[in-house]
Amino acid sequence: MVRIEDVAPPVREAQYAVRGPIPARAQELERAGRQVIYCNIGNPQSLGQKPLTFVRQVLALAEYPELAERAPAGTFPADVVEVAREVARGSGGHGLGAYTESNGYRFVREAVARFISARDGIDADADAIFLTDGASKGAQSVLRLLIADPQDGIMIPLPQYPLYSATITLYGGAQVPYPLDEAHGWRLSIADLERSYEGARARGIRPRGIVVINPGNPSGAVLDEPNVAAVLAFARARGLAVLADEVYQENVYAPGARFASFAKALEGQRIRDVSLFSIHSVSKGLLGECGHRGGYLECRNVPAEVREQLTKLQSIALCANSVGQIVTYLLVRPPRPGDPSYATYERERSEIFESLRRRAEIVERGLSRVPGISCNPVAGAMYAFPRITLPAGTTDSEWCLALLEETGICVVPGSGFGQAEGTWHFRTTILPPLDQIEAVVARIAEFHVRFTRAHGG
Amino acid sequence: MVRIEDVAPPVREAQYAVRGPIPARAQELERAGRQVIYCNIGNPQSLGQKPLTFVRQVLALAEYPELAERAPAGTFPADVVEVAREVARGSGGHGLGAYTESNGYRFVREAVARFISARDGIDADADAIFLTDGASKGAQSVLRLLIADPQDGIMIPLPQYPLYSATITLYGGAQVPYPLDEAHGWRLSIADLERSYEGARARGIRPRGIVVINPGNPSGAVLDEPNVAAVLAFARARGLAVLADEVYQENVYAPGARFASFAKALEGQRIRDVSLFSIHSVSKGLLGECGHRGGYLECRNVPAEVREQLTKLQSIALCANSVGQIVTYLLVRPPRPGDPSYATYERERSEIFESLRRRAEIVERGLSRVPGISCNPVAGAMYAFPRITLPAGTTDSEWCLALLEETGICVVPGSGFGQAEGTWHFRTTILPPLDQIEAVVARIAEFHVRFTRAHGG
Repeated sequence: MVRIEDVAPPVREAQYAVRGPIPARAQELERAGRQVIYCNIGNPQSLGQKPLTFVRQVLALAEYPELAERAPAGTFPADVVEVAREVARGSGGHGLGAYTESNGYRFVREAVARFISARDGIDADADAIFLTDGASKGAQSVLRLLIADPQDGIMIPLPQYPLYSATITLYGGAQVPYPLDEAHGWRLSIADLERSYEGARARGIRPRGIVVINPGNPSGAVLDEPNVAAVLAFARARGLAVLADEVYQENVYAPGARFASFAKALEGQRIRDVSLFSIHSVSKGLLGECGHRGGYLECRNVPAEVREQLTKLQSIALCANSVGQIVTYLLVRPPRPGDPSYATYERERSEIFESLRRRAEIVERGLSRVPGISCNPVAGAMYAFPRITLPAGTTDSEWCLALLEETGICVVPGSGFGQAEGTWHFRTTILPPLDQIEAVVARIAEFHVRFTRAHGG
Repeated sequence: MVRIEDVAPPVREAQYAVRGPIPARAQELERAGRQVIYCNIGNPQSLGQKPLTFVRQVLALAEYPELAERAPAGTFPADVVEVAREVARGSGGHGLGAYTESNGYRFVREAVARFISARDGIDADADAIFLTDGASKGAQSVLRLLIADPQDGIMIPLPQYPLYSATITLYGGAQVPYPLDEAHGWRLSIADLERSYEGARARGIRPRGIVVINPGNPSGAVLDEPNVAAVLAFARARGLAVLADEVYQENVYAPGARFASFAKALEGQRIRDVSLFSIHSVSKGLLGECGHRGGYLECRNVPAEVREQLTKLQSIALCANSVGQIVTYLLVRPPRPGDPSYATYERERSEIFESLRRRAEIVERGLSRVPGISCNPVAGAMYAFPRITLPAGTTDSEWCLALLEETGICVVPGSGFGQAEGTWHFRTTILPPLDQIEAVVARIAEFHVRFTRAHGG
């Protein structure tokens, strides 16, 4: 029989706090009848966000094409019917039930290339795009290529999203954390990158790549163009591949802030010797289609023979799920002005965006007012990562567990993301609905006061 | 820049012939305007198999629940509407756009447990079931647990499905092939298992698990109950975990043959000290929903703390795609007698089954008649793996490439699956439609005669 001690050590050692012990306890409480508010994971539709009508209408027709004839005229807008036909043609007439190419439907990869071109004013190549089961799988494939032995290091932000730490552990590589500067809104500084790189070298680690999450998860910070250019220059000087996690590119709320892609910076500077891997997802942004597991990986300055290795990795499990690929298509091919679906689509999107923007503000302001909690601006993404002052002898994990038991609010301790020695944090999403978010923030505030008193703080 | 020599060696070394160089050449030919018949991969809907109406109607409603109100009464049968409601309730009211639990929707896991119980007359536990993106991902998770270092061996059949060889290479383990006996319809013999096991031990390999594919891919053989019991007894004596690939359990065509599950054999003998991992899929059987990437992994005699490691592996990329999970639900919860969809569902299924059965027969008989080709019975699954006699100095890869160039028929060389030294084979699916399959077989036969002559055979 397979016992726990028989399980491969890298598997046992990998940790993924976002779905770790505290969320597991939350599920237990929920099964026992407690009401739980899941702020542990960026899962908008589980907290009431409605799917975009256009997306779901196309999917219904793509799954069951006879509907276009069986349902009376007018059941679906004409552009929805037309897009469903594009899907049918694009799948070679086979529909969603056939395996796709290993790297994904060609017509979707071409649409993604046009989307990147339009977004950044640069060329993009459908042959350098891979459709993946969510962005996570794209990130994992890239790390899989780069990590050959325990001395291979991957630079990751501190705090980071635990997909990265868990995957590096699983593949037997070395984590090389670079700190973000909490005192300055989680700013990324090149001096810190240099220090982290040199420190790793001194320990015998060979850094192979650097992960940048922009907008930041959990930090909420948004990089500007000079930041992005500086990271690229650093990567170039050090011979590092760049893995740009850009899944929150639509989630920028701070006035004046704008998403700046790594692809645009790379092309703007005509850099030809830095490999760039960028990932994007249907789970975040304004679609929030997490369950559909759609996303893409775009490669730049990656030789064809290396891209073939990525194709092979995808082919071993055949292909990403077809529906997620279609949702990716809809992400990059929305209704156009004049299309019958356009007005509804734009209204639904702007309602979601405006609501996210207001919730980011409410969480940030509400938590900042609490004595013993300080919260940086939620300039982008879907999370706050506030610092908490804890009574001596207590930890952020204990704080989060007590918060869950007392209030039903499920958040994740900072230790799951990494934090400077001697500091404590938690990550919460900003996703509870507008009519509940004030109450959630108030309950966290009251709880913090109680917890501090109860532990003699 | 990442060069090919920078890519981790296990990635470079992994080979997956089903989507390897010959299928890649087929795509090139197709883009250049040639008509290609893809017999390289079990992808029924790409060769004209229609999806089951019930499955697609439920998916359309699950994607776009308002349809139940918007479309006029009678657009969907009442049981389809009811099953779509079960899906809505089962997803906690969140629908398909929210992440599911890491191990999959509970209501689907419970339905899978009931399916196994009904199939085998045994108990099944929803907590020991994992919903996966196709069966491949379940197999990969199990191998990931078992392989810790290069001395960890996994016994695999010869010939085998290259998911196994590729994944073992990728995870840095050792392949321990056990030959199937071609002279006796690819029979699995315990004596061969013993020889293979002892040979591995003598080379310093520690076998940790054994993969059994039943019905066999590519062999087409179907194990009977005594076979299955004997493999279990062998695994028990040697302390091996069993990975039972049972994705073709509905694809049994030979008169008198019946699928015998490992779970039933294990429970029948009350074996409590052999860990069993069984996988199943929506891609094969009579659904053929390959693109949807649905499947499940069932564990028996696997401690909860080991299962938690599987949950963690799934959680790092969050969850399997929701739609594939729903297709898995529909696989195990078909319409029941008396339901409005029942008659159509049964008719569609039996047409597909009967057509597969006839095609298996046509391929087997047609190829067996060709001088220089011998083809074992296609008792189950979706493939023939005929042996070919080749002129001296030629290989099966050359034969397959020439077949593709001359006829447009894409099959995979036996070397991609493993074959006894000095023998040559190819794998073809039995999936071209009934009205084409005779012609496909005839073209292969004519080609073989030409190829043999041209090379002085």
